[in-house]
Amino acid sequence: MHTHRPASGTAFRNGRFAASTRELAEEVAVAISYNGTSHAVLMATPADLEDLAYGFSLTEGLVASVAEVEEVATVDCGRGLDLQVSLAGDAGQRLAERRRSMAGPVGCGLCGIESLEAAMRQIAPVSAGVRLAPAEVSRAVAAMAKMQALNLRTRAVHAAGFYQSERGLVLVREDVGRHNALDKLIGAAARAGIDMATGAVVLTSRLSIELVQKTAVAGCGILVAVSAPTALAVDEAEAAGITLAAVARGDEFELFTHPQRIIGGSLQDVA
Amino acid sequence: MHTHRPASGTAFRNGRFAASTRELAEEVAVAISYNGTSHAVLMATPADLEDLAYGFSLTEGLVASVAEVEEVATVDCGRGLDLQVSLAGDAGQRLAERRRSMAGPVGCGLCGIESLEAAMRQIAPVSAGVRLAPAEVSRAVAAMAKMQALNLRTRAVHAAGFYQSERGLVLVREDVGRHNALDKLIGAAARAGIDMATGAVVLTSRLSIELVQKTAVAGCGILVAVSAPTALAVDEAEAAGITLAAVARGDEFELFTHPQRIIGGSLQDVA
Repeated sequence: MHTHRPASGTAFRNGRFAASTRELAEEVAVAISYNGTSHAVLMATPADLEDLAYGFSLTEGLVASVAEVEEVATVDCGRGLDLQVSLAGDAGQRLAERRRSMAGPVGCGLCGIESLEAAMRQIAPVSAGVRLAPAEVSRAVAAMAKMQALNLRTRAVHAAGFYQSERGLVLVREDVGRHNALDKLIGAAARAGIDMATGAVVLTSRLSIELVQKTAVAGCGILVAVSAPTALAVDEAEAAGITLAAVARGDEFELFTHPQRIIGGSLQDVA
Repeated sequence: MHTHRPASGTAFRNGRFAASTRELAEEVAVAISYNGTSHAVLMATPADLEDLAYGFSLTEGLVASVAEVEEVATVDCGRGLDLQVSLAGDAGQRLAERRRSMAGPVGCGLCGIESLEAAMRQIAPVSAGVRLAPAEVSRAVAAMAKMQALNLRTRAVHAAGFYQSERGLVLVREDVGRHNALDKLIGAAARAGIDMATGAVVLTSRLSIELVQKTAVAGCGILVAVSAPTALAVDEAEAAGITLAAVARGDEFELFTHPQRIIGGSLQDVA
């Protein structure tokens, strides 16, 4: 499927209307189903959808590792796509039990969250020992801009990237949904056998709690964001042991939690 | 509840670290339940939550008018808030029937979408006859910036506003979630008895299909957005009869669909 298409319209500039064209980002309804039962519906950019299926399965706790996913088939249903995930024995059985324990229709399908408890789930703290120099934070953000191929065309999609000191920005995934971009990144890293404890997640999007939760589930200790975090995202990063560097623009950024993973970031270090 | 709080951290500027503070936007898990049964869980800014309950109920088709909502009670559940909506007889019965027709656990709770069909639902086209001058589009966007009280403090929340030619920007609602900001706006307008066919919705956020769907359900014929729309959002605006003015910055904007509601926007008019 195409990820973008040209659209013609009318632009108002310098006080007058004129014909104009623009590349628009495609967006498609994507269902994710497990062993034949629909689980969630997302609005997503139709690219890297297998990565999305793997990443969503990992970050929503449906599988503990990529080995528990036997196969992902993408089926075009006309009104959208269905990512049909086949789970290996154990994971399939766990999901069947989880479903049986759910009392009645508990909601919808945009993300797999059934309750306040699920939305505010507790995640084991990250213990990654990796550290970055301040200049690397800025370098990672600067490198993202060049690798956001779809955003350069459309200016309408988010990106999530994975940065390592030795190799730079090794993976970037884009999506109209910021949760999807991160799930695609986490899925791609897991499939490639990249341990996310070895580097930093870089996000172009606003930073709300779910993105911190997903980063924690992926075992990554450093989260760099272009925008400002919410208060709950900061609380979650604190609890999850994640170093949160946000409002990262140009050569500047702010550290909100666990500053020790950025060299010089703990003010005690330099005092 | 507070909508923001100060946080202290460390800022890296001009090559060195120094202590810094910043106001963070609060974000809280909000469940919406109808007649005692949980329906959806959203992450939201804890302000104007009754507007959110009304707007969500309207735009998700749970009620046809505010008269079908008997009461909204906000209950603090510790891990989040529960907006307990009591539906009037007819609407309550419709929802109970809809629930019975749902086969098993069909998803989650972030937005009430159960299936690809629900995500791609068809909405009756808007027939609003209102028109705006090009300068009003720019004026509406400029007026938004000054009325985004929480965003001025935190730089982390979206806003949705309602603009009328005679009265200017009459309502603005903010939220960490762009869907919530629009639902709050639509709920506030409905509760105030404002007919949204009489003006334009103005959004600071990226424009995906759900925001066009919500605007169409609210009966508003003009949607102005600061950012670029997705291709599906443009398709939906075309089908829903909505005039879509986007990439609205400074004195410029682009018209993607139904340009006749912006004076001079149909190039035929000026040819």
